[in-house]
Amino acid sequence: MRIGTVVGNVWATRKEDGLTGLKFLFVQLEDTKGVPVDVPLIAADRIGAGIGDTVMVTLGSAARFVISEKDVPIDAVVIGIVDSIDVESR
Amino acid sequence: MRIGTVVGNVWATRKEDGLTGLKFLFVQLEDTKGVPVDVPLIAADRIGAGIGDTVMVTLGSAARFVISEKDVPIDAVVIGIVDSIDVESR
Amino acid sequence: MRIGTVVGNVWATRKEDGLTGLKFLFVQLEDTKGVPVDVPLIAADRIGAGIGDTVMVTLGSAARFVISEKDVPIDAVVIGIVDSIDVESR
Amino acid sequence: MRIGTVVGNVWATRKEDGLTGLKFLFVQLEDTKGVPVDVPLIAADRIGAGIGDTVMVTLGSAARFVISEKDVPIDAVVIGIVDSIDVESR
Amino acid sequence: MRIGTVVGNVWATRKEDGLTGLKFLFVQLEDTKGVPVDVPLIAADRIGAGIGDTVMVTLGSAARFVISEKDVPIDAVVIGIVDSIDVESR
Repeated sequence: MRIGTVVGNVWATRKEDGLTGLKFLFVQLEDTKGVPVDVPLIAADRIGAGIGDTVMVTLGSAARFVISEKDVPIDAVVIGIVDSIDVESR
Repeated sequence: MRIGTVVGNVWATRKEDGLTGLKFLFVQLEDTKGVPVDVPLIAADRIGAGIGDTVMVTLGSAARFVISEKDVPIDAVVIGIVDSIDVESR
Repeated sequence: MRIGTVVGNVWATRKEDGLTGLKFLFVQLEDTKGVPVDVPLIAADRIGAGIGDTVMVTLGSAARFVISEKDVPIDAVVIGIVDSIDVESR
Repeated sequence: MRIGTVVGNVWATRKEDGLTGLKFLFVQLEDTKGVPVDVPLIAADRIGAGIGDTVMVTLGSAARFVISEKDVPIDAVVIGIVDSIDVESR
Repeated sequence: MRIGTVVGNVWATRKEDGLTGLKFLFVQLEDTKGVPVDVPLIAADRIGAGIGDTVMVTLGSAARFVISEKDVPIDAVVIGIVDSIDVESR
């Protein structure tokens, strides 16, 4: 999983079936110090994350497993809102 | 998911079974400001996206889930045509 | 999917079961102008692509879906021989 | 699989169902000489790895297979605590 | 698939169930001229590859398909020992 910050929303009226009702957030992935890494990606969210929240994001096929039908064509999902991280400086 | 712009088409007469009738688009992935990221990739499309449209693209195994048979050998698909994005400057 | 050109062959006598009879090609992925991107990868081929052909390659788990048994340990496959591409300059 | 060192922990109270009770570690992937590669990622751990341990990490869909239900939305997991590595200088 | 050279071994006594008895090799991925690409990764091996062998490696979910149970948490496997490659200079 990766850590990042919710930075925006995306809206699409015309879309594949099965995506209706899902919320899509732009998430800026970061290193453990909060420095942005790569460009923002779009993650589905079901747990109510909002702009500014630090979140854990799961990528790839595992993202589908938060949706009970599992047939939804998504490749990234917010799985947790981070309370705190604790990383040892090296 | 990633955001990008449809920039072209690709045609292949000789291809694997199961791909007949699918439309293939070149999509240039972008950051949230529309700046191109990486080289264009080829995504299947079933929702009627055209050149110039801003689209959401799902990558990896989830791409197959827009096709009812699910056995189609594709790894990228357009899942939505984007109406608007709203990204907080940081 | 990605676009590329077939640039070579690879032979391996000692290999995992289930791979016997599959043809393995080196494919140089390219951008839409034919400029090489990354190093060549090895893709299975069942449609008869040869050196110099421009091909579409599917990566990841979807590659297995061209093989009826689906249990073959391959992660890249040629899915089409490209007739033409049409990409808008930006 | 990749090799890395456990460098921290992450806590998230609000999270997807099915993640309760799983431990999440930050792992800094490394080359075979211990030089950091990319930014730390978050891996689930069930075998009791702790800060400073050198670990093997499995990425992608295979990560789910350490959980008996397999429906857990994780994409990285610690699969072993490394005793020793032996790499030939080239 | 990717090509590379076996450069080492990794040992882990404490590991996830199902990995017992599997051999883990460090493989340095290479381009078609043998120049190293990225850092070495760890691949499972069942066909008896040894240090110095040129091998084909399958990445991702397909790696599990060399193991009959398919539930083993591995994401890379040696699928062949390469006899020869033949790549056209461009």
